[in-house]
Amino acid sequence: MFALSSILSPDSNSPHPMYIQLATQMIKHIRAGVLKPGTKLPSIRRLSVELNLNPNTVVNIYEELILQGWVYTKPKSGVFVSDQLPELKPRSFKPEVSAFNITHYKKTQESSKCKYYINDGFPDYRVAPINEILRQYKKAFYSQNIEKISLTTNAISSWGLRASLIKDLYTSRGIQATEAQIAITRGAQMGIYLATAALIKSGDYVLVGEPGFAIAHATFEKLGAKLIKIPVDEKGIDIGLVEKAIKRYSPRLLYLVPHHHHPTTVILTSERRMHLISLIQKYKIYVLEDDYDYEFHFDHTPILPLASADHRGCVIYIGSLTKILTSSLRIGFVIASEKIIKNIEDHKRLIDGRGDLMLQEAVADLYENGTIQRHIRKSLKLYRQRRDLLCNALTLELGDSVSFTRPQGGMSVWIKFNKKYPVQKIAYHAKTLGLHMSDGSFYKTSDQDHNAIRIGFASLNDKEITGIVSILKQAIKECR
Amino acid sequence: MFALSSILSPDSNSPHPMYIQLATQMIKHIRAGVLKPGTKLPSIRRLSVELNLNPNTVVNIYEELILQGWVYTKPKSGVFVSDQLPELKPRSFKPEVSAFNITHYKKTQESSKCKYYINDGFPDYRVAPINEILRQYKKAFYSQNIEKISLTTNAISSWGLRASLIKDLYTSRGIQATEAQIAITRGAQMGIYLATAALIKSGDYVLVGEPGFAIAHATFEKLGAKLIKIPVDEKGIDIGLVEKAIKRYSPRLLYLVPHHHHPTTVILTSERRMHLISLIQKYKIYVLEDDYDYEFHFDHTPILPLASADHRGCVIYIGSLTKILTSSLRIGFVIASEKIIKNIEDHKRLIDGRGDLMLQEAVADLYENGTIQRHIRKSLKLYRQRRDLLCNALTLELGDSVSFTRPQGGMSVWIKFNKKYPVQKIAYHAKTLGLHMSDGSFYKTSDQDHNAIRIGFASLNDKEITGIVSILKQAIKECR
Repeated sequence: MFALSSILSPDSNSPHPMYIQLATQMIKHIRAGVLKPGTKLPSIRRLSVELNLNPNTVVNIYEELILQGWVYTKPKSGVFVSDQLPELKPRSFKPEVSAFNITHYKKTQESSKCKYYINDGFPDYRVAPINEILRQYKKAFYSQNIEKISLTTNAISSWGLRASLIKDLYTSRGIQATEAQIAITRGAQMGIYLATAALIKSGDYVLVGEPGFAIAHATFEKLGAKLIKIPVDEKGIDIGLVEKAIKRYSPRLLYLVPHHHHPTTVILTSERRMHLISLIQKYKIYVLEDDYDYEFHFDHTPILPLASADHRGCVIYIGSLTKILTSSLRIGFVIASEKIIKNIEDHKRLIDGRGDLMLQEAVADLYENGTIQRHIRKSLKLYRQRRDLLCNALTLELGDSVSFTRPQGGMSVWIKFNKKYPVQKIAYHAKTLGLHMSDGSFYKTSDQDHNAIRIGFASLNDKEITGIVSILKQAIKECR
Repeated sequence: MFALSSILSPDSNSPHPMYIQLATQMIKHIRAGVLKPGTKLPSIRRLSVELNLNPNTVVNIYEELILQGWVYTKPKSGVFVSDQLPELKPRSFKPEVSAFNITHYKKTQESSKCKYYINDGFPDYRVAPINEILRQYKKAFYSQNIEKISLTTNAISSWGLRASLIKDLYTSRGIQATEAQIAITRGAQMGIYLATAALIKSGDYVLVGEPGFAIAHATFEKLGAKLIKIPVDEKGIDIGLVEKAIKRYSPRLLYLVPHHHHPTTVILTSERRMHLISLIQKYKIYVLEDDYDYEFHFDHTPILPLASADHRGCVIYIGSLTKILTSSLRIGFVIASEKIIKNIEDHKRLIDGRGDLMLQEAVADLYENGTIQRHIRKSLKLYRQRRDLLCNALTLELGDSVSFTRPQGGMSVWIKFNKKYPVQKIAYHAKTLGLHMSDGSFYKTSDQDHNAIRIGFASLNDKEITGIVSILKQAIKECR
């Protein structure tokens, strides 16, 4: 037999005790058939010399293997690999993979070299009240009894945050709901997923805007829906065509982004909203109202949600705090009938257990002490300035290479490039100039090529806005 | 016309500006048909007197309504409700709901009166390194560029945590994987959900243990599976019967909890594991290996996972950090082939967006600096003491009213009550004595009534263990 020491590799830098490392390696060899059942293992003294280890470590290794049933001792003979285990052939076809493959890491580092980044509309985490959030989060851990919260009801949305949101949504958006009519989710996206799963079954038609929010569309399709695309113009989704589609397809659901539609940022007008409400009342179609950045409206307060109107229980309302806080603190909510909320909570438990009740309690406290409201007011002002700076710079520097409408709200501008300059090419040149941006594919939800992207301005300071526009100008030049 | 002021209710304690509050209320009345199109609204002066408001506030209200298109001014006549909006009847059948329904809150408070709680096996958050986690979390926010991480790759699992876990799993569990073969999830539960969704289609058979983990079973059924229940005995799930079921039903998947099986805490023996590996190689059945509390093994190190054996890509391995950290910091992982991981990541994006990359980076740092490993060693020692204290007290105080096997690992003891004492009754009496516990229904996954619950000992200090056992004793007495 070959020397056992030749197939063992002790690593003294590992945080795991030596005997566990080596026992683990030996078990692998037993299972792979390298150490066959019945094989006699070296004596404690011999192995300790070969591996240059303390004999006690070898004793621990063998004890571990005995306890786990992989080897046994025969009195006066020594230690043997157990032969009660079915013998397996050594692995043959599966290639050995390196445990420390770093190609992906390298790729990440490479594209991290850019000086600037254009996102789809993130908030600016640099001005977010992260300190306050984390302070309150820590407090929640120590002041709340986690077990008590988790166990005394089957609640998997915090009662505190439900109560705070209900109060806030009533005064700020005219939405009336009870605590049994709201579920807390990880961001609006989980709300879209769970609400859709509660409403549709495989094969149902869902109406969506075109262009539209690609990730929502993918969600509906994942859940088995067939999509019907309804054009979106400067007044929002075309409600006349929605009615025609309702008559023709009897869809189960309409997905609506009434404020700052994704990606175009247009707002559904009051007239169209009233028209839609009458369709809801007439046809009893469900509407998923995704109001993900309701708070960020610059020229007047936002139009009230459909969910605040007389919708006969057909509007399921989705909101997000992620756009207020930061991209990685994912909190959103769904408002619907008790029955739908019950379905959503049951499904959520299968996906996310009880969620993060502590973070939810912390955010509830920040609502109660006004931190969230103050931060909204502060960032609203800041983002308005950034919108204006970006729009002015785009007009001034890029002229008729681009066309866009100054958005009344939200966190990004929808910019169409002149057909002469394909956005893929612009993105390519921009990258060599130090700007990472979308090549437009994310915004292509049909055959139609908008040759457009969203520029999220909310997260960019003045210097970044100027720098980005200047690189865009240069990249467009390179396309000529 | 009735006085407008009679249907408006200014709330000076609201964090929202007065004019927005009142404009919101007026829009609701317009939409509800209470204020009909064409209605003339009171003059600024009159409304300000009636509501006892500064006239400027009323000017702001009307400006807001004009901007949003709900009302218009006729020169020299006054302000009118817009008549370009379709008239809607006032809401009729939908009952007005109170926005501040507090029945649920009350219910929560009521059951929060208990002095003690029995959980299913939570870690003790009081000894968890919460300070270190939150400190590192905060650092991650300020030292990492969130946008950069989110945008430069499409990664929705942090590369840092993937790398740390791969290194750790290799040395501690013998699992070899690349960074493209691991996905980070919100706890093991999201891993079970996503991996199952990647593997099965509606109508597929899934083998599960009986008794088994009710939430996993509900997950499989939610995703369309038909369950085949295989008995679990003191050596784990019966692999002989697994083979019979494979031949008969051609199931797509076997769900396996090899360490500390839920709920029974039994460990699948080495012999059965080897047998199962040979079945995997023969029948190519997928195995979802849920090793949620691998770290907590008291008498010897845990048996190596199936995922470390030659499983030909058929074992999908699921782990959890939630059991190490605290119930509300939900982090888990799935290890599988690149193709399955890609499917999981694509699906995860539809459920949870990019997740919380900052928390993942923070936990990666805690792996790198040894905090996690130190905490595991520390809590392992503590939990072993608690297991022994609980088991000894149960034997001493409850005698033959209960039967259980001292678990070799995990965070809970599976306790069967003598049939004379139905667990529902015990739970009822316990509650009146200040102990909140399961009534056993969570553990009933078939017609068979085990009359049993799990007592999670990890989160209980000595005083709590003594207190709980003493109430159990009393509650059993009350059943006589």
